[in-house]
Amino acid sequence: MTHPSVGIIMGSQSDWGTMREAASLLDDLGITYEKRIVSAHRTPDRLWEYGKTAVSRGLQVIIAGAGGAAHLPGMMASKTRVPVIGVPVQTKALSGVDSLYSIVQMPKGYPVATMAIGSAGAANGALMAASILALHDTELAERLDSWRSSLSASIPEHPSDD
Amino acid sequence: MTHPSVGIIMGSQSDWGTMREAASLLDDLGITYEKRIVSAHRTPDRLWEYGKTAVSRGLQVIIAGAGGAAHLPGMMASKTRVPVIGVPVQTKALSGVDSLYSIVQMPKGYPVATMAIGSAGAANGALMAASILALHDTELAERLDSWRSSLSASIPEHPSDD
Amino acid sequence: MTHPSVGIIMGSQSDWGTMREAASLLDDLGITYEKRIVSAHRTPDRLWEYGKTAVSRGLQVIIAGAGGAAHLPGMMASKTRVPVIGVPVQTKALSGVDSLYSIVQMPKGYPVATMAIGSAGAANGALMAASILALHDTELAERLDSWRSSLSASIPEHPSDD
Amino acid sequence: MTHPSVGIIMGSQSDWGTMREAASLLDDLGITYEKRIVSAHRTPDRLWEYGKTAVSRGLQVIIAGAGGAAHLPGMMASKTRVPVIGVPVQTKALSGVDSLYSIVQMPKGYPVATMAIGSAGAANGALMAASILALHDTELAERLDSWRSSLSASIPEHPSDD
Amino acid sequence: MTHPSVGIIMGSQSDWGTMREAASLLDDLGITYEKRIVSAHRTPDRLWEYGKTAVSRGLQVIIAGAGGAAHLPGMMASKTRVPVIGVPVQTKALSGVDSLYSIVQMPKGYPVATMAIGSAGAANGALMAASILALHDTELAERLDSWRSSLSASIPEHPSDD
Amino acid sequence: MTHPSVGIIMGSQSDWGTMREAASLLDDLGITYEKRIVSAHRTPDRLWEYGKTAVSRGLQVIIAGAGGAAHLPGMMASKTRVPVIGVPVQTKALSGVDSLYSIVQMPKGYPVATMAIGSAGAANGALMAASILALHDTELAERLDSWRSSLSASIPEHPSDD
Amino acid sequence: MTHPSVGIIMGSQSDWGTMREAASLLDDLGITYEKRIVSAHRTPDRLWEYGKTAVSRGLQVIIAGAGGAAHLPGMMASKTRVPVIGVPVQTKALSGVDSLYSIVQMPKGYPVATMAIGSAGAANGALMAASILALHDTELAERLDSWRSSLSASIPEHPSDD
Amino acid sequence: MTHPSVGIIMGSQSDWGTMREAASLLDDLGITYEKRIVSAHRTPDRLWEYGKTAVSRGLQVIIAGAGGAAHLPGMMASKTRVPVIGVPVQTKALSGVDSLYSIVQMPKGYPVATMAIGSAGAANGALMAASILALHDTELAERLDSWRSSLSASIPEHPSDD
Repeated sequence: MTHPSVGIIMGSQSDWGTMREAASLLDDLGITYEKRIVSAHRTPDRLWEYGKTAVSRGLQVIIAGAGGAAHLPGMMASKTRVPVIGVPVQTKALSGVDSLYSIVQMPKGYPVATMAIGSAGAANGALMAASILALHDTELAERLDSWRSSLSASIPEHPSDD
Repeated sequence: MTHPSVGIIMGSQSDWGTMREAASLLDDLGITYEKRIVSAHRTPDRLWEYGKTAVSRGLQVIIAGAGGAAHLPGMMASKTRVPVIGVPVQTKALSGVDSLYSIVQMPKGYPVATMAIGSAGAANGALMAASILALHDTELAERLDSWRSSLSASIPEHPSDD
Repeated sequence: MTHPSVGIIMGSQSDWGTMREAASLLDDLGITYEKRIVSAHRTPDRLWEYGKTAVSRGLQVIIAGAGGAAHLPGMMASKTRVPVIGVPVQTKALSGVDSLYSIVQMPKGYPVATMAIGSAGAANGALMAASILALHDTELAERLDSWRSSLSASIPEHPSDD
Repeated sequence: MTHPSVGIIMGSQSDWGTMREAASLLDDLGITYEKRIVSAHRTPDRLWEYGKTAVSRGLQVIIAGAGGAAHLPGMMASKTRVPVIGVPVQTKALSGVDSLYSIVQMPKGYPVATMAIGSAGAANGALMAASILALHDTELAERLDSWRSSLSASIPEHPSDD
Repeated sequence: MTHPSVGIIMGSQSDWGTMREAASLLDDLGITYEKRIVSAHRTPDRLWEYGKTAVSRGLQVIIAGAGGAAHLPGMMASKTRVPVIGVPVQTKALSGVDSLYSIVQMPKGYPVATMAIGSAGAANGALMAASILALHDTELAERLDSWRSSLSASIPEHPSDD
Repeated sequence: MTHPSVGIIMGSQSDWGTMREAASLLDDLGITYEKRIVSAHRTPDRLWEYGKTAVSRGLQVIIAGAGGAAHLPGMMASKTRVPVIGVPVQTKALSGVDSLYSIVQMPKGYPVATMAIGSAGAANGALMAASILALHDTELAERLDSWRSSLSASIPEHPSDD
Repeated sequence: MTHPSVGIIMGSQSDWGTMREAASLLDDLGITYEKRIVSAHRTPDRLWEYGKTAVSRGLQVIIAGAGGAAHLPGMMASKTRVPVIGVPVQTKALSGVDSLYSIVQMPKGYPVATMAIGSAGAANGALMAASILALHDTELAERLDSWRSSLSASIPEHPSDD
Repeated sequence: MTHPSVGIIMGSQSDWGTMREAASLLDDLGITYEKRIVSAHRTPDRLWEYGKTAVSRGLQVIIAGAGGAAHLPGMMASKTRVPVIGVPVQTKALSGVDSLYSIVQMPKGYPVATMAIGSAGAANGALMAASILALHDTELAERLDSWRSSLSASIPEHPSDD
């Protein structure tokens, strides 16, 4: 496959600290991806272009992280029918509640699959992408099952004082 | 195909007023589905069974609606790798903020693709399911594109006083 | 002047119940305006076009109302340097706090002059537009001063039991 | 008595920093307990097993701590009639409001005795357990009365500048 | 036994609309109870007296409902070691978030077993009381198990359009 | 005068860091006061005694600081007609919103004069006490006027970069 | 006494529905008062005048009600050392949380004695005023004690089903 | 031009850390401005004077920053028809939600163009001022367009790990 399955996009460089969790998990699961800064406000034409070519470029899932008045995930969902996963980035004053509301409260017609605020949400964005791709990729399905089993197996029975 | 592609599940009968929006939109898009009441707390074994057989029964997407301490979507996500879409049902005292936090704030490992609170969220759950299914169903992709185009075309240019 | 000074735009027909307060006040102050439905998600190209031509069409102020994940004001602010005033429309589940956060928490570079939630905010959007236009329109300045004086004069000294 | 009276369970190792306050207080009061990591999402079968055997194993109270979309206390309450006390663990983005809502807003049928967010809540979980056990344990009742008296007696009459 | 097992107390007559759900469920489970208006602010001496005699009068559990600056449950917990269950009554302006915070955020030493806001919380207060009493009442344990089984059995598999 | 005019009370030693601002300001204004730890939950009898003797001991104002489920100010208001000023102490998880709601949302009959969260609120509690005492103390009125004038005079006209 | 002891002021006619509770209670307690509409924004000069003459006109307490961005109580506190009691009026979108924060979060120097949101807060404003006036009015102190005793005596011991 | 176009005002010296972002951006855009501390509560007469002379002194825009019960922007909007931009300063306990509500929720008649909480809001206040001034200043319009283009051009396409 010459094009990546997943596009990780984010509103600014400062979101990368959060979104790298998504990249890292996609690496672990052997899923190809590209990563781009696509700002809804600062580079709207880039957003337009990205959305319009998403299907033809073979993207299967887009993971979009943004903070504050976080318009990137919703605007991307308006431009393409490729499933868009939204990651609310934690913010200084409002802790990401602003990001969450701006991403999840989409009107009928343009869903954004919203994840938890912050790094856990970014990692889960990758896992959600994997679960979608696994619907038609048996090997990935096995790797995902295996990842999930490992996570379960890694939980000790007793808490440790260390 | 003898089994439905999508499972719509909800925590109680009272959630159906919200979740029927998902069913209605799946009907419009020609997507097969089943609908079940699966309460995380009142019928946990039903939840277990549903989750464990989801892959083998050929479900591609699960849309789960619940309100208050809404555990159904997250617990289902724990039991199957089939993508789970969560719909926070509006509640009396907290307007669905409780539902939203209980669904969206999942820990790393078990993503729930969270939609907006209430009916718009239920409809969007169906559209998100459609976008996932459309990745490998060209005819559905066309129907979805058409639905999206119709929605856009239906917007008048001027507001009406009626 | 053949083109209107102010553009009132809104995300959907249902926002008109709120935004008509803006129109009504502009009428009172003798300010020309146009009103349009411009949905950030459903008609993004209309938004693009509107934003790109705002300066050349002579618009001096844009008043944009939207609810929920309210992306219209912020996206418009990204497309034009014409001042954008944002009006958060009250919503069912979250009472407009979602609209408010989605509009006001814009990142550095793209301000939206945010008003109060709901009808009072729409009326104030018109007054803010008037105060901007009045900077270079002495007659409007007088009308605005007069409107403000009337408002003050209309306040009785004692509350009435009726 | 060969089995412990109280089960302290938590969703992950990281909750132990909070839940150790419960353990410490049970130690002080001479109440036997066991402590386990039981993740609702990562080890649901462990949760099932724990809940199903709680009565037969002689557990009198379960203290369950969890954070974020905190499903552990409520799911445990669904699996056993042993009283479940829930401790909302403080979270990074939402300070534990997500944990609190996920634990306290349980539907009719499955109560969780919810405590304050964080360490004070964990300590109080132990005290609530003690008050339940003391209903049929005169010596514990005396120790609990004594603990409460000591707490009251420890309060100085004047604040100190040190 | 000539004295009731459970005391249902509430801050004012207006809380009875909520707290009667607790009474009704105790009736269903065959648990004896008394019901009293005990206002923390308007009848503090009644609160004192009630708390000080709770143990000697043989009360096993106290279910306390209150709204707004809801001090009744916490003050009762300060006066007796009998387990106190708190029910936050829904309020007009703040929907019961004020009641919830005033009840659940108790300092170390004086736990209140907090339930959900409103009627579901009142019903759950009764069920929590039942689960405590069932620890030493085999027949009640069977009735509670039976009530729980009936609740589970009452859930239809499919939502109904009626 | 052998008895102090103002009683500063607080729920615990840890509140002193906040409440010392009140003491400091009373010192500045030459107002006599006493300071006590009076915990609503840990020393309810002390609260009772304090409230019942407040009038006879000649206290004119009580300033009560507390955090979390902050019951001290409201319970004191229930025990005496001496004006009670409440200071919500900032808390770890909920930043003092819990304290604020527990103090301000008092039912009809028992007002608490609530101040801002934290140190500014404690200082303002002292100033509110001063304004009450100044109604019948001309010299204090002058000192208060002078304090207020000094505050105003201390504001530079331009912000400084240092 | 030819001038009233208490000034009830409010931001607009629409606040009277709330503030009449204050007037009604002052009537019950035999306290003289005047009532005025004084809008911080619409009639700032009236506010100025009212504040500047409050002391010389013999006002002992000012009860100020306002909603939304409620600036009246705080601005009045800036203009006079007469104690100002603030009543947050409930609002449509934000239920009075906006009013509450705008009134209670005053900076050091200018306290506002904030009451509960809505009618209960207005009534309590009158009671707080009474408790202040009663410090130097023995007869009022007796009437206030009597009012408080009546309130306590009016509480039935058992809730009624009617 | 001998008088500045923009007035930056703030409630206290401590707001300068936030508001200097506005000053810095005005410098970058070559817009003349003055900066003043104008406290609504501590220096109300200074506020009055500033507001009353704003038009005659030729101010075109006022940018007002304040925190907590932030009355400065709204009171200034009441005193002058010059457009007022409000910047909610982040606060310790409530993170600036108090500032935001106190500024944005203005009643009909007196709009405040509210920006995001904190430094980004201050910078955006300057950009909003620039967009207003640019309506009648072609050179500034070009500088603003250029500043916006530079911002867009500065966004790299890929996130960097550094």
